[in-house]
Amino acid sequence: MQIARVCGTVVSTTKEPHLTGTKFLLLQAIDLEGQELPAYLPKYEVAADRVGAGFGEWVLVSRGSGARQIRDGQTLPIDAAAIAIIDTVTVGNRLAYSKRQSDR
Amino acid sequence: MQIARVCGTVVSTTKEPHLTGTKFLLLQAIDLEGQELPAYLPKYEVAADRVGAGFGEWVLVSRGSGARQIRDGQTLPIDAAAIAIIDTVTVGNRLAYSKRQSDR
Amino acid sequence: MQIARVCGTVVSTTKEPHLTGTKFLLLQAIDLEGQELPAYLPKYEVAADRVGAGFGEWVLVSRGSGARQIRDGQTLPIDAAAIAIIDTVTVGNRLAYSKRQSDR
Amino acid sequence: MQIARVCGTVVSTTKEPHLTGTKFLLLQAIDLEGQELPAYLPKYEVAADRVGAGFGEWVLVSRGSGARQIRDGQTLPIDAAAIAIIDTVTVGNRLAYSKRQSDR
Amino acid sequence: MQIARVCGTVVSTTKEPHLTGTKFLLLQAIDLEGQELPAYLPKYEVAADRVGAGFGEWVLVSRGSGARQIRDGQTLPIDAAAIAIIDTVTVGNRLAYSKRQSDR
Repeated sequence: MQIARVCGTVVSTTKEPHLTGTKFLLLQAIDLEGQELPAYLPKYEVAADRVGAGFGEWVLVSRGSGARQIRDGQTLPIDAAAIAIIDTVTVGNRLAYSKRQSDR
Repeated sequence: MQIARVCGTVVSTTKEPHLTGTKFLLLQAIDLEGQELPAYLPKYEVAADRVGAGFGEWVLVSRGSGARQIRDGQTLPIDAAAIAIIDTVTVGNRLAYSKRQSDR
Repeated sequence: MQIARVCGTVVSTTKEPHLTGTKFLLLQAIDLEGQELPAYLPKYEVAADRVGAGFGEWVLVSRGSGARQIRDGQTLPIDAAAIAIIDTVTVGNRLAYSKRQSDR
Repeated sequence: MQIARVCGTVVSTTKEPHLTGTKFLLLQAIDLEGQELPAYLPKYEVAADRVGAGFGEWVLVSRGSGARQIRDGQTLPIDAAAIAIIDTVTVGNRLAYSKRQSDR
Repeated sequence: MQIARVCGTVVSTTKEPHLTGTKFLLLQAIDLEGQELPAYLPKYEVAADRVGAGFGEWVLVSRGSGARQIRDGQTLPIDAAAIAIIDTVTVGNRLAYSKRQSDR
């Protein structure tokens, strides 16, 4: 899974019928300091929201068929889903990210 | 999913029998300003059209097995499909893209 | 799917039994002008031939599980297949590629 | 599969219900000398732990649907799992990595 | 599929139970001249051996779910397998690689 930050939303009315009711998050790929990845890598992706993630929150993104192993998700034509809101990222003994500190 | 702009079509007569009737869109990967991605990344891909997308429209592309979770799609030998026409992309509070404004 | 040009073949006698009878094409990734992609991207891949594609022809390559949605293909240990020979690629109003012109 | 080094953990309380009890490892992609990969490639990924891997250990990471071919794993919305703790990596006749030497 | 050269092995004792008996090859991605790929691309991957490939041999690597379409392979948590030992690679009329010449 990748770590990404919720930075927006994507709205569509003309879409595959199964997608009705699925919210699309715009996610920004980030490194462990919360910085954008270098320009060599894609910066944005769109993922189905499964956890009610809000703007600025860090989420885990699951891609491919893993994104459909969710409630009522087997028939969704999606290839990415936010499956968890991240509380903390720890690198060795160091707390690299904490949602609580970030929320203040 | 990725955001892409419809920039053309691909036509084939000699193909897997299941593909008969499937329209192939030529999609250009873009960033949130509608600009081409840097040269380090592939610029084009071909996707099955599921939503009647027209030239210049922004679509959501689903890749891999997700592209086949569509009506009568399970047996198609495809790895990408345009599954939604994008109305709006919002980054934070800013409207980064609006189909309505783009259509004018 | 990606657009690629047939540039050769790969032959193997020691292989998974299910692969007996499967022809392997060597494909070169190209852009819409028929040029090689920049060095930052992989240049070659090997795909099962499903359409009798010949040297120099442009084909559509489907990757992943999509490559096995073909006649008798479910049990093949392949991750890429040429699923269509491309007749034309149109970018906007411009004919970027035509097999007929290319054949002359 | 890729070779990666365990460098931390990711914790989440708000997540897909099936993920309860799954430990998330933060993995750093490395080359055969244990060095970070160049900046052009993603440096980190998050994977489900299946082998009780500890900080600093080298593991094999399986991605995609392969990550779910594990005990009780078919319904997990994951796309990566640490499936083995590496004892040795041998390049030709040279021992490039040995967990035993690394543990000292 | 990709072309790769067997350059070593990876050994693990602590692993998913289904992996018992599976040999892991260390593979080096190469171009058609047998040279390493540029630094922008990953250099190494680990694949299950299905064909008894030896050091220095060129193999075809199948990734993703295709790697599990092998004898008793459906339940293996792998995402790559060497599915064929390459005899020859032909580019146009030129023999780019021949195992026989390479073995001398």
